[in-house]
Amino acid sequence: MIILGIDPGTAIMGYGLIEQKGNDLTALDYSCWRTPAHTPLAERLLMLYEQISPYLRSHTPDHVAVEELFFNRNTTTALSVGHARGIVLLTCAQQGIPIYEYTPLQVKQAVVGYGKAEKRQVQQMVRGLLGLDDIPKPDDTADALALAICHAHSFPLNQKMGGFR
Amino acid sequence: MIILGIDPGTAIMGYGLIEQKGNDLTALDYSCWRTPAHTPLAERLLMLYEQISPYLRSHTPDHVAVEELFFNRNTTTALSVGHARGIVLLTCAQQGIPIYEYTPLQVKQAVVGYGKAEKRQVQQMVRGLLGLDDIPKPDDTADALALAICHAHSFPLNQKMGGFR
Repeated sequence: MIILGIDPGTAIMGYGLIEQKGNDLTALDYSCWRTPAHTPLAERLLMLYEQISPYLRSHTPDHVAVEELFFNRNTTTALSVGHARGIVLLTCAQQGIPIYEYTPLQVKQAVVGYGKAEKRQVQQMVRGLLGLDDIPKPDDTADALALAICHAHSFPLNQKMGGFR
Repeated sequence: MIILGIDPGTAIMGYGLIEQKGNDLTALDYSCWRTPAHTPLAERLLMLYEQISPYLRSHTPDHVAVEELFFNRNTTTALSVGHARGIVLLTCAQQGIPIYEYTPLQVKQAVVGYGKAEKRQVQQMVRGLLGLDDIPKPDDTADALALAICHAHSFPLNQKMGGFR
């Protein structure tokens, strides 16, 4: 199964594409989509759309994993993330790719085995589990890979439990 | 000039299309785009995209007016509005239609002449200014028309003042 983790943002959108074969996880591709500073929001969203849409088309992930809506940040961040997240959901829906959502707690538990893990611990585990030489940069890319790993670890279990969501 | 006001939401998205000729404002079309309840967010965003995009293409507004990002509501609302607003901004950017943003205060001042006007007063003025028999329903549609009127009243002035935004 090919899983794409995405960490949405209007300035930087991290992504990480992994392949799961049994217990083996391989990083196929990871980086981030950026938009230039001082660019109107609508243009940024269009730039992101024009990067994500062909990426999904050419890499054909089976599933996409994103962070669940969470409400403990401030409203400014929520609105900004909401715009970018809307574009991600739209492109996935346009191409019929199922989307799965995970809370930060679920990601930490799935990747580190400990819901209160530090960011650095999550990043070290991402590096280790995928056999990478270094921790992926920027943080948004590491977070996207952590989401993909979380889905790889959670999805088969949830399937066995009789359906996801 | 043809102006489209949009009041974004994932369940109901109000819109109002008006024509401005000198001091005359005419309502060309107004209603709302709806998505069915209990539908996954990504599908709702796709449904909205597939309604807005052809609408813009066939009605070719010169400008689109939306409510400015505002930060005094709760985070849940902000995220939800953010998703829907992202789709509006994207479709406008895809078709090269300029977007203008107004705060609720600006809308009230432009439509009623009084920043602390009640919702009902704004709706009555929308009805009167556009010569409609009744107040447009639902509220989202009336709000969208108010945004379009606000832009019609504000834009020429802002242009004369040497550039908008």
